[in-house]
Parts: sequence; C-alpha cells; structure tokens
Amino acid sequence: MSFSPLIRQLIEALRTLPGVGPKSAQRMALHLLERDRSGGLRLAEALQAAMHGVGYCNRCRSLSETEVCRLCTDPRRDDSLLCILQSPADVWAVEQAGGFNGRYFVLKGNLSPIDGLGPDEIGIPALLAQLEQREVAEVILATNPTVEGEATAHYIASLLKPRGIRVSRIAHGVPLGGELEFIDGGTLAHALAGRTLIS
Amino acid sequence: MSFSPLIRQLIEALRTLPGVGPKSAQRMALHLLERDRSGGLRLAEALQAAMHGVGYCNRCRSLSETEVCRLCTDPRRDDSLLCILQSPADVWAVEQAGGFNGRYFVLKGNLSPIDGLGPDEIGIPALLAQLEQREVAEVILATNPTVEGEATAHYIASLLKPRGIRVSRIAHGVPLGGELEFIDGGTLAHALAGRTLIS
Repeated sequence: MSFSPLIRQLIEALRTLPGVGPKSAQRMALHLLERDRSGGLRLAEALQAAMHGVGYCNRCRSLSETEVCRLCTDPRRDDSLLCILQSPADVWAVEQAGGFNGRYFVLKGNLSPIDGLGPDEIGIPALLAQLEQREVAEVILATNPTVEGEATAHYIASLLKPRGIRVSRIAHGVPLGGELEFIDGGTLAHALAGRTLIS
Repeated sequence: MSFSPLIRQLIEALRTLPGVGPKSAQRMALHLLERDRSGGLRLAEALQAAMHGVGYCNRCRSLSETEVCRLCTDPRRDDSLLCILQSPADVWAVEQAGGFNGRYFVLKGNLSPIDGLGPDEIGIPALLAQLEQREVAEVILATNPTVEGEATAHYIASLLKPRGIRVSRIAHGVPLGGELEFIDGGTLAHALAGRTLIS
C-alpha cells in the first residue's frame, strides 16, 4: 500500500537510522502518531539542536558542542597520559568502561591507503603538533585490533618512539566472560603470546 | 560517562522510539552526528510535519492528513464491504497483504471494561451512524483474536444482526508456513473446529 505523503516521508526518514528496517520504521511512525506526538516533537527538536549545535573539540577532536570539550578542560584528568582512538564512539566506550583518567585524541578513522586515507587524512599532523606543545609521558594506542587499526598503531609508534615518548598498545586477548572454546584462533594466539606472569 | 547536553538530549529523545534501548540510541546519535547530519535534519522535518499534519479520517477513523482519507475517497473500492479493525496499523497490514477491496472502519482499541473502555469510548456509536447512512452488505470483523478482540467482535455482531446486516469474522487457524508441532493448542483447536470441506 502507499501511505499518505506525510506518513510515508516519516517512515522513509526513520529508515536513515542505523538498524531500522521498513517494518520497524512503520512501527515507530505509528507509535509516535498514535501514542506519543509530544515525544515525536521533542525528538525533532533534539535532532535539530544536535545536528546544528554539535561540532568537534579543537583539542581531542571528539564530538563536542563547545570549542574544547568537557573531557579536555576537566582539571582532574591526567595530562601525562594520552589515549589515541579512532572514533568518538570509542571515547564513549572507554569513558563508560571507567578506569581511564587521562586525555584523548581521536583520529578520523584508520590508515587505509586503498580508501585514500593517509596520515594527513586521519589527523596525524595535528597529533604531532599537540605532542610538541604538551608534556605527555605515555601514549596509549587504542585503535581497533583490525589490520588497519594495527597498521595505524604501528605507524604512530614508529613516529613517536624516536621522540622519546613511551608508547603502549591496549591488551588483546580473551574477553572477560568469554569461553576459550568459542574464541577465534587469532585472539587465542594473541592471548597466549601476550601472557603475563602471576607473581 | 555523562555526554554533553545536546548529545544526551538526542540520545534520550531517540529512546522514545519503540524498541530503541540506551545502546541503540547511542549508536543512532553517533551515526547521525558523524555520518549523516542531513539525514538527521530530514528526520527532524519529517517528524514535525507528521506530528502536526496527520490527524484522523472523518470516515474510517484511521490516520490521515486529509479530512477524509485516500482509501475512503477511492472510487474503485467496494462500498458494500466494511472491514472493522482496532487500529490504523491493522489497516496498513491488511492493505499490504492485498486482496481486500472494501472500506475500513477503525475502532479506538477493543472493549475492555477493566480499562474503562466501553462501546462509546471505542467508537461504536459512530460505526452505527455510518451503517445507517451507507448501504453495507457485509461487515467483516477483523479485531485481534484475543479475549478483548473476540468480545468486541461478538458485541458488534449482536448489534448488527438484528439490523439485517451480514456479519463475518476473519478466519482463525494455522498460519501459512506454520508447523503444527509448534502451534499453540488454542489455535490448533480453532483450526480443527473451523475446518472447511475440500470439494
């Protein structure tokens, strides 16, 4: 069936959301129209405010609605630790996990020559410029453990080591709660190679 | 972690959508901010247009942005068949299934005395008024096969039969592609009781 124009446009617009197919979009549109019009209007306002108001932090380059984000201006955080990530989602994930109290720097993705993403495109020059201005004792490379993420981590390490900065990589291994029998061979090999002594 | 205000408000507003939990809302917000700002703005506009512009059809009482909806004004549809449903979503489902070419009337839910929903609340007087004005040969009761849906169907049937209108109920039984072994006993009993002769 063809819906009336406004309903059809709403269903199509809802499908731009990730993970929303035609059936869910229809259910969402109906829910808003039948049961929660004020919620629908609130969502419209929140979308407009965020799409226009959220930019990028000048320092860590994560999403921010101020020139420098809250995490970069927080005086309680440790300036000597810099964690390098490949997307704002990763900053959120690390913050939600807790336990890290340093600063962040967000790359625009990973090195991927095949997609035309070289050091300049992902923001390496800005990273180096920041490291010259700030006193960072250790850089933690937390790009994803994919081929591109590993290549990016190695590339950055090769740039920073000659400058006398300590460079570390997040641990790879068996996730908590994981069962060895269901874990892929690559992860298992990493977990064995990266074993630590029990003191 | 606490997100910056605009991002937090966007995530909270996205959670008003049915089936969207905190993690999906976060993923949606990030997707729009990082990859599809124009999509986000289009969604905001579609929401505003639909929330303000979509009302109810004066005739069938389904969602419509015009006083009388497209289905009610379509001259190719059969005026003598009236299908009674309990929500606009059901109209969409029947239309998408195809095969029905009559008119619709949408109740505001089902009779449910415990929730204070009597005949007046669900729109029975309007249904009777319409049946007096129009020449309807058959009313098809397509409320859900739940306790309330069945009660509503029986109630309407008891009102219409004395007026000489033919009243039918949609068939209940084993869904196409269903496997007997996995179908609940109530459905199976219905399917057996409602068996039809193979001619």
